[in-house]
Amino acid sequence: MFSGALQDLVDELAALPGIGPKGASRISFHLLSAPTAEVERLITALTLVKEKVRFCTRCFNVAEDQFCVVCQDPRRDQSQICVVEEPKDVIAVERTGEFGGLYHVLGGVIDPIGGIGPDELHIRELMSRLGDSNVKEVIIATDPNIEGEATASYLARALKALDIPVSRLASGLPVGGDLEYADEVTLSRAFEARRSL
Amino acid sequence: MFSGALQDLVDELAALPGIGPKGASRISFHLLSAPTAEVERLITALTLVKEKVRFCTRCFNVAEDQFCVVCQDPRRDQSQICVVEEPKDVIAVERTGEFGGLYHVLGGVIDPIGGIGPDELHIRELMSRLGDSNVKEVIIATDPNIEGEATASYLARALKALDIPVSRLASGLPVGGDLEYADEVTLSRAFEARRSL
Repeated sequence: MFSGALQDLVDELAALPGIGPKGASRISFHLLSAPTAEVERLITALTLVKEKVRFCTRCFNVAEDQFCVVCQDPRRDQSQICVVEEPKDVIAVERTGEFGGLYHVLGGVIDPIGGIGPDELHIRELMSRLGDSNVKEVIIATDPNIEGEATASYLARALKALDIPVSRLASGLPVGGDLEYADEVTLSRAFEARRSL
Repeated sequence: MFSGALQDLVDELAALPGIGPKGASRISFHLLSAPTAEVERLITALTLVKEKVRFCTRCFNVAEDQFCVVCQDPRRDQSQICVVEEPKDVIAVERTGEFGGLYHVLGGVIDPIGGIGPDELHIRELMSRLGDSNVKEVIIATDPNIEGEATASYLARALKALDIPVSRLASGLPVGGDLEYADEVTLSRAFEARRSL
């Protein structure tokens, strides 16, 4: 469509998730007419992410050192571990301010169609972590969808052997939602998990 | 939200057109786990675009030399100039295979609200180009929206003094479209510009 260097950039951008060929050409033209300093900042950010950001050797959250900021913090409750799918889920839980323990990032979910089995996730590392430490509760916070539920069941079964209490985040009506528009599964869950007042 | 280098990349990506904070964090995580070679290809493409791509000194299309590929091509009809808003419009016209002349890229449209007047566009350059050459027709191919129409009227008035025939791309029903769903303005234009069979 374009020639040489411009087409190369369009192709590279179009390969990123969520950017199509139209978006890629729009961004390319934006960068073409943007000040060189802006493009250099982007290049620096890309370079530094690959150089500096790695994964915490204990919980697999993103980190710039051997351990992530959560694992480095001595005030965190070492007896609770919240198991999430991705590093961005750590951010989501941190935003609530509800949880003061540690995390374990699986790096995905069990997804047989996508070829992701338990061995592709950081489940083995979770087991050996739980073996060494005095963790008193594991909270499974995978997404409430088919793959997330399957992964949670798998983990619950695997953790049973270690005799550590395992819990799962509640499913139910989202706060601010509307009963009328709730899907059947969510509404059924909300009934099942009803609490006495 | 994140820390250090990762957040910097999310911020830089979120500043690009069409990418929001969610998309930026999705792309950042993708790049974080992508092979280093992929990120390096993106960095190279960004670097080369700023180094190599410039604008044709004659028509302001994108170019890697002093002149763009269209201006360099001796087979192009030097007597017709198609005036477009952006370099991507050149690509759109080229794809039709209908036009064998030269282009002139304005670099935008007259948009008083956005603070873009005729002096911010390459209109002066078009005038001096037309003064020097033996151009027999100028085809105005700005977008058929308010700004595009205003720019076309402005150009038509300005070109009248040079005594060169000026035409405008036809507005009407898009091929493959449906009369029922056409908006009133398009349908009125199609009536006005009806052709005898």
